[in-house]
Amino acid sequence: MINKAYIPEAVILAKGEYPSLPLPLQLLEEARYVVCCDGAANEYISRGRTPDVIIGDGDSLSPENRVKYADLIQHIPDQETNDQTKAVHYLQKKGVRNIAIVGATGKREDHTLGNISLLIDYMRSGIEVRMFTDYGVFIPIQHTQTFASQVGQQVSIFNFNAKGLRGEGLFYPLSDFNNWWQGTLNEATANEFTIHCTGEYLIFLTY
Amino acid sequence: MINKAYIPEAVILAKGEYPSLPLPLQLLEEARYVVCCDGAANEYISRGRTPDVIIGDGDSLSPENRVKYADLIQHIPDQETNDQTKAVHYLQKKGVRNIAIVGATGKREDHTLGNISLLIDYMRSGIEVRMFTDYGVFIPIQHTQTFASQVGQQVSIFNFNAKGLRGEGLFYPLSDFNNWWQGTLNEATANEFTIHCTGEYLIFLTY
Repeated sequence: MINKAYIPEAVILAKGEYPSLPLPLQLLEEARYVVCCDGAANEYISRGRTPDVIIGDGDSLSPENRVKYADLIQHIPDQETNDQTKAVHYLQKKGVRNIAIVGATGKREDHTLGNISLLIDYMRSGIEVRMFTDYGVFIPIQHTQTFASQVGQQVSIFNFNAKGLRGEGLFYPLSDFNNWWQGTLNEATANEFTIHCTGEYLIFLTY
Repeated sequence: MINKAYIPEAVILAKGEYPSLPLPLQLLEEARYVVCCDGAANEYISRGRTPDVIIGDGDSLSPENRVKYADLIQHIPDQETNDQTKAVHYLQKKGVRNIAIVGATGKREDHTLGNISLLIDYMRSGIEVRMFTDYGVFIPIQHTQTFASQVGQQVSIFNFNAKGLRGEGLFYPLSDFNNWWQGTLNEATANEFTIHCTGEYLIFLTY
């Protein structure tokens, strides 16, 4: 059962809009280890915090932070991935398997789409990952799974390659959706719901 | 050739974040016909404008606007679609074939994903549609197409069911992507680029 209780080993602060909701902010605050993606470190530092690592080339850091935190900057040259993925790989190499990502959405929509869909790839590489936004949480899932919920909680399902999709405890029936919008705006009808299927999908749960 | 010159017959103001960039704002300003999705009408009206139609049940309109603009409200009961799609269908019934959508992103990410992916469905139903955000424009495309561009312009391609994807005038090679992020963050290398393929995809061009 997937439920709210979730204590990540590390939190990645990505380069979208800085979180403003208590839940993602609290995750950042209580994180045992924080990786900032490049320029995102500026605002984190301005709030009196110090990241454990800054991933990127430091180009979007303020000149002051670039000097002051030079020893925290990990420059990972790889044109094929973005800073969020570099941060995940960095943590993965350190043996971290349980990651929360915040601040990954809310600016350029193609970045938002890219960052969200990368969760599927992280799951495939053995990472347990959740992305917390100002509106809800995205979780990549494989096969049949049960989720804790509240009655009326909004649920959206984005199908990647799942077959035989069937819901239990959801207001609208599921099918093998092939466009993103088709699984959006569903609703939990009880304190848990189950998605039956074989394959991969993303779930978005409002708080 | 797809280029910037685009004068829509109608503009839909959706219920995401109100546009703040000159381009989407100008589209709204110069629109011959404006459809507001429900609560989005409040801010449009507060800027001294009057929509031609308000789609929705009026629930998110201010009590004052609900009374004052009662004759503009088109309540279309259909649990299977959202207000953006109802607005498209409304225009389609009036014979409109050329639509710009603004204000459709920037709030709940599942709504953003849903709204963007619906462009593919609108294209299938014969509508020429573009979605203008504060960062760029999404255009649903079928088969091989050439686009006007500037050198260095950022281009992201989201593959729905296209096969044989091959680019010309793009920095990174294309392939038959199966995850959303794989076609993001490409770049035009000349004043036009061509995407060769059979099938449907979404393109995102930064301004």
